[in-house]
Amino acid sequence: MMKTGLQRVARLVHNNALPRNLQILPGLQQASACGSSTDSLVARFCPKKSDLKDYALPNATWCPDMLSLYQEFLEKSKSGSWIKLPSFKSNREHIQGLKLPSGLVAASDKQDWRIFTRCIQLEGQGFEYVIFFHPFEKKSVCLFQPGPYLEGPPGFAHGGSLVAMMDETFSKTAYLAGEGLFTLSLNIRFKNLIPVGSLAVLDIQVEKIEDQKLYMSCIAQSRDKQTVYAKSSGVFLQLQLEEESSQEQ
Amino acid sequence: MMKTGLQRVARLVHNNALPRNLQILPGLQQASACGSSTDSLVARFCPKKSDLKDYALPNATWCPDMLSLYQEFLEKSKSGSWIKLPSFKSNREHIQGLKLPSGLVAASDKQDWRIFTRCIQLEGQGFEYVIFFHPFEKKSVCLFQPGPYLEGPPGFAHGGSLVAMMDETFSKTAYLAGEGLFTLSLNIRFKNLIPVGSLAVLDIQVEKIEDQKLYMSCIAQSRDKQTVYAKSSGVFLQLQLEEESSQEQ
Repeated sequence: MMKTGLQRVARLVHNNALPRNLQILPGLQQASACGSSTDSLVARFCPKKSDLKDYALPNATWCPDMLSLYQEFLEKSKSGSWIKLPSFKSNREHIQGLKLPSGLVAASDKQDWRIFTRCIQLEGQGFEYVIFFHPFEKKSVCLFQPGPYLEGPPGFAHGGSLVAMMDETFSKTAYLAGEGLFTLSLNIRFKNLIPVGSLAVLDIQVEKIEDQKLYMSCIAQSRDKQTVYAKSSGVFLQLQLEEESSQEQ
Repeated sequence: MMKTGLQRVARLVHNNALPRNLQILPGLQQASACGSSTDSLVARFCPKKSDLKDYALPNATWCPDMLSLYQEFLEKSKSGSWIKLPSFKSNREHIQGLKLPSGLVAASDKQDWRIFTRCIQLEGQGFEYVIFFHPFEKKSVCLFQPGPYLEGPPGFAHGGSLVAMMDETFSKTAYLAGEGLFTLSLNIRFKNLIPVGSLAVLDIQVEKIEDQKLYMSCIAQSRDKQTVYAKSSGVFLQLQLEEESSQEQ
């Protein structure tokens, strides 16, 4: 169990009074925004070769809007501006070789762990999504198609499923843009319901990085931008993941 | 698809300028807090007999904390102060015989629809939870045990899963306390991570009902209240569900 609260960690970061073994990033300078830090994070996050299944690939259940927008971003990614993020079954696979900050002890690997947004493996029934990340502009786009297992009001996606998708996209963006690791807060204003089976496009932007915190915004809307589904903001705490080998020395 | 945004509906309610066929509650008076309205809603929501499976019942995966607190609340429910809410596979089953307000057309019943928080049917792997509601004090308690399919950071529940659980408990409480139907906004501050497989107790309170909106708060913490996981607030819009038969006349 985590003994130290996230807010307390944030205060400790601010006061330069960190608990033993807790690695905290130095204040992130503007200059490092597009530097090696993000590059190396992206390189680690997007392995050229992997035996792990990538769930962020088209399948027969994707609606035509989702499929064609995916192809558009894939085309853009050839120029290197956008990067398609792989999506594995568990965050454990995303951070292989790294360990959580001291005080956070992960339970054993014995169970069938799944990242929440990949909890349903039946194609089209749960979260269908793919995230594209733009390292230089520190922004992301998530193409999200909620399935019938994410229902709230009959025929529409549960508000909680949209928030989960926002939190997950915030989280991956925060990590790659500046090692943002933990959600400190989320504010969401809902505008319209998302019909199950249709596409919602989430545009995420890092607004600023200050005092070891990343401030981010999100707008979720239809592809033609005529219907806004929700707007949100999120604050993430920066914490460096340690190399496992360096701990064992 | 919903043509009218939730915020616009809220403004229309406020201005008494409602679209055709949209049934809106009259301003809820203090006096109606414990009156027939909540009573009849609860009676409809908690049928004495039902063939539907209730997922809010103990199973072998519940941790001892969850099981014993469930028994405590079940004991209290005998005096009538607390009511254990059943939890069916889909919201369609919760609102049988009722229809959504005009403009919200639910898709067909042909698919395997599931309410998001019951999306995983494998015991212990997803959302294990039960909600108790206190009609007179307009509050709820949700006992929530996240399974390994709700993972975020390795070994801990995804922030989005906790928000989904909060939204769902807010939602049921808002409906029973004053026909709150749609989430307008959510604000969440995360304090500590919830270890997968352990109990989080969500205490939900209706703070006020004003201008057809319900204002609610939630604190999620460990059973001994020594660890706060998150605090949140939510605003819900009141909208009356129509009887299907009255529409068909």
